[in-house]
Order: sequence, then C-alpha cells, then structure tokens
Amino acid sequence: MIGRLNHVAIAVPDLEAAAAQYRSALGANVGEPQDEPDHGVTVIFIELPNTKIELLYPLGDDSPINGFLEKNPSGGIHHVCYEVDDILAARDQLKESGARVLGNGEPKIGAHGKPVLFLHPKDFQGTLVELEQV
Amino acid sequence: MIGRLNHVAIAVPDLEAAAAQYRSALGANVGEPQDEPDHGVTVIFIELPNTKIELLYPLGDDSPINGFLEKNPSGGIHHVCYEVDDILAARDQLKESGARVLGNGEPKIGAHGKPVLFLHPKDFQGTLVELEQV
Repeated sequence: MIGRLNHVAIAVPDLEAAAAQYRSALGANVGEPQDEPDHGVTVIFIELPNTKIELLYPLGDDSPINGFLEKNPSGGIHHVCYEVDDILAARDQLKESGARVLGNGEPKIGAHGKPVLFLHPKDFQGTLVELEQV
Repeated sequence: MIGRLNHVAIAVPDLEAAAAQYRSALGANVGEPQDEPDHGVTVIFIELPNTKIELLYPLGDDSPINGFLEKNPSGGIHHVCYEVDDILAARDQLKESGARVLGNGEPKIGAHGKPVLFLHPKDFQGTLVELEQV
C-alpha cells in the first residue's frame, strides 16, 4: 500500500539556525520558510535527490508541535510521511487492520496541498506516521 | 555535501511485530532479519521505491540502542542516514564547521558494508545523523 517516503519531519526550536546548519554544514538545498496556519507550523523543505526533509517550527500558541518541543527542547525527528495512491482506501484498510487514525478520521489538506492523515504512534513502534495521497 | 537519504532507522521493542505491521498493515516490502554483531543490532530493511526504512532491534547486552528503548519503550525514530561521496572529506568539513563526530572519529563499516560515521544529535536539532559513503 505505501509508496515513496515523501519526507521526514524534524521539529526544531530555532528554524533559522536549523536551516543554516543544513545549508552550510551539510551543504543541502534548503528552501524558504512557509507558514501553514491550518497546521500550526512554519515549515522549510530541504530537497534531497530522492526525498525531502521538512523542518517544523511552531506557529501560534496551540501548535501541535509545542508539546513535542517541550519534551525535546533541542528538537528531534517528529514523523515520517509515506505516499499512498488512495488515502480513503488506505485509511479504511488500516482501520480494518486495527490501526488508529488520529483526529476525526477525515483527511486534511497538507503542506503540499494534498490530502493527509496521521496514524497513532502506538500502532507503529512509537513512530508518528503521516500518509499523503499523491 | 549530503546526497540521498539512504534510510530512516526506527528502533523497535519487538522486531517480528514491527515487521508484520509494516508487511500487512502498510503493505510494504519487508526483508529478513540480519544480525550485525559489530553494531550490536539486528536489522530488517524495508524497501520503499525511493529509500529504505531500517528496523533496529538490540543484539547483545551492550547494544547501543538499549538506552534508547529504555527511554522509549514503544520504540521510535532513531536516526537518519545521508549518503556522501567521500566520508573523510565530509568528516573534516563538518569538524571545521564545529559539528562533533561520535566515537573516535574514524569510520566504521555499516550494515551495507560501507564506511559510516555518526554526528552528535545536539549539533543537528536533536537528530542523530549517520553519514554513509556510497
């Protein structure tokens, strides 16, 4: 069911410092910050030859990553995003297998303008999994 | 400097359960367990169309992931691995930029039989970064 790894998301306490570190120390192709008010985050995408790194920084007081950064003040890897062809079919199949979908179970529109869903980390070895329909 | 994302490593408390979940719930192409005694882990690679997921399970009493699993009993994303062309040149450039290389600074041979190094998570937003020469 899952296809490509669309991105790995890393929550960071200082977006400019993280972008500078990836650009200068690691020599990566680092994009510009984009505010995603519907998701409570500002993101920067780092383009690698085969996938992307998404730097995540809180936007607003009730950002969903505030809690993560409180627990991990230096930042850390927040989630992985796998691509699927049909997000509703994937959701229904996962629910049948016993996996829990976060929120109300309806896809939201993600940072790439495409439908996304998140799966419960407890069902995937402590890993928050995002599915994105491509 | 960095090229492709070679893999994302996920430490898991139950390797068979994790492999079954990726195989059946997520429909992924899951390999067979390989013991890596030099690294104190048993690994399973999951082949995605553009990269790999590496499931990590402790091998031996002094496995380097025992501490991680004590802190994260359900498991969690352990590190990301970026490819580089020349690991010694990458190491020297990173050290000049102020980033710390773990261990004695000399590459070890990784799970793919290629030289690898790990960078200090505090220098990369709480993310453990592996470099692999390809």
